[in-house]
Amino acid sequence: MDELELISEHRCFGGVQRFYRHASRVVGLPMRFGVYLPPQAASGPVPWLVYLAGLTCTEETFAIKAGAQRVAAQLGLALLTPDTSPRGADLPGEADAWDFGVGAGFYLDATREPWQRHWRMESYLLDELLPGAVAQLPLDGDRCGLFGHSMGGHGALTLALRHPGRFRSLSAFAPICAPTRCPWGEKAFAGYLGEDRNGWAAHDATELMSRQAQPPYPDGILVDQGLADRFLEEQLHPHLFEAACAAVGQPLTLRRHEGYDHGYYFVASFVEDHLAHHAAILRR
Amino acid sequence: MDELELISEHRCFGGVQRFYRHASRVVGLPMRFGVYLPPQAASGPVPWLVYLAGLTCTEETFAIKAGAQRVAAQLGLALLTPDTSPRGADLPGEADAWDFGVGAGFYLDATREPWQRHWRMESYLLDELLPGAVAQLPLDGDRCGLFGHSMGGHGALTLALRHPGRFRSLSAFAPICAPTRCPWGEKAFAGYLGEDRNGWAAHDATELMSRQAQPPYPDGILVDQGLADRFLEEQLHPHLFEAACAAVGQPLTLRRHEGYDHGYYFVASFVEDHLAHHAAILRR
Repeated sequence: MDELELISEHRCFGGVQRFYRHASRVVGLPMRFGVYLPPQAASGPVPWLVYLAGLTCTEETFAIKAGAQRVAAQLGLALLTPDTSPRGADLPGEADAWDFGVGAGFYLDATREPWQRHWRMESYLLDELLPGAVAQLPLDGDRCGLFGHSMGGHGALTLALRHPGRFRSLSAFAPICAPTRCPWGEKAFAGYLGEDRNGWAAHDATELMSRQAQPPYPDGILVDQGLADRFLEEQLHPHLFEAACAAVGQPLTLRRHEGYDHGYYFVASFVEDHLAHHAAILRR
Repeated sequence: MDELELISEHRCFGGVQRFYRHASRVVGLPMRFGVYLPPQAASGPVPWLVYLAGLTCTEETFAIKAGAQRVAAQLGLALLTPDTSPRGADLPGEADAWDFGVGAGFYLDATREPWQRHWRMESYLLDELLPGAVAQLPLDGDRCGLFGHSMGGHGALTLALRHPGRFRSLSAFAPICAPTRCPWGEKAFAGYLGEDRNGWAAHDATELMSRQAQPPYPDGILVDQGLADRFLEEQLHPHLFEAACAAVGQPLTLRRHEGYDHGYYFVASFVEDHLAHHAAILRR
């Protein structure tokens, strides 16, 4: 990763919330990300979590809305928040829809024109941003967890299953659990990967889990889901992921919360539990 | 207050974050506000805080960015968040500046054309929104505290001093403490009240405090101020309010925080202390 340009810096709960811009070689465009460094990072590398945000969000959304810095400061965790897609490619139609293109990268590498040149979020995260962040910030490369929300929950579950050993802990809020079987996923995968569905399963958390020979996260996966979430029935399908986990013996804590919706008032309500879940595993 | 129209409702920390719209007779336009009702409100009226936001903010800003619902749920406090000005009046130049007009009502009643018809935030709050909220929501009319940020800190300090007995507890984040002596206040007061400075002092927290015969808030006022706040030196002048409090014997806890700026990463870092300050007084 090339040099980081600091966009802004804000003292927060004794640590610091920063936003950076950098030229991305993988994406071929400037990219932004946020990082919260807890007070403990002043004296050396700390365990850290990567949070992947949902459709229409940016690197700022979780930092502004989730209230996670308070808990991160208590637990000594850093929080890295990437953006949700490339921006500024100026591709035809890239901003015409809120569920495809800008703000909707789905955390995979597109294989189809015109997206394949810039829409390479998986390689960007795994090969450039995460190792670059470890090299340039006080983050402990061996102690990294992954979580996300909605499209970012899909990203967290799939990237954690596609890259064994890269992440030691895993959780999600209202994730898209079976994108090959919901409108959001079908639209995105057709657009980024093409109409041939054979390549889709490798980016579907339920499919990936069902192919595991043994439980990939023996310390357990935490998933929170609101029952007043208007996307639950058509788009999210947590019961399919739950069944896949059960079939391979993967411990899963899937909590269904009466009355909670899909937004950040829901995420904020349970973010402390997620950070505690990760911290307990990363401390081992 | 006329009938409330519910815009949205979100379960949050066991309570509910709501946003309402209503026709305002005082302002002559539709107005919006937010309210967080903690779980305790399900069984009867609860003590509550009114939070006044700063320049450019809306009724959503504090609800989204401050992370206060968690603490409010623990303490059994409701949080009422008004908007920062009338909207939709369509006055010439009303949205030309970020520090005057739309989003910048300064919580007073304008006396000058063309603002005097709609820009009546003080009367709107005291005579319409607050009593209307008590009448229509589970809020304990006798146990209300007031706080705010920046322009809303000015609003909190001045309204609490102008309306003795209406608010039992008082605090502020980075308030504009002496608006008659800073560019933001001079611009707003000249525009809303006219060039004659004689009328300005009645809306200046430092002036109001210095005229008190005895300490109006004997339980103390809490003010937090970041020392990396780029508006501190030119616009905020907390030392003047501090001196005015000292002169009348008003207990003031003015905390100066190294490294913190003017934004909501600062507000969020200390919001728990503010809610605890109010709750302790409102419980008496």
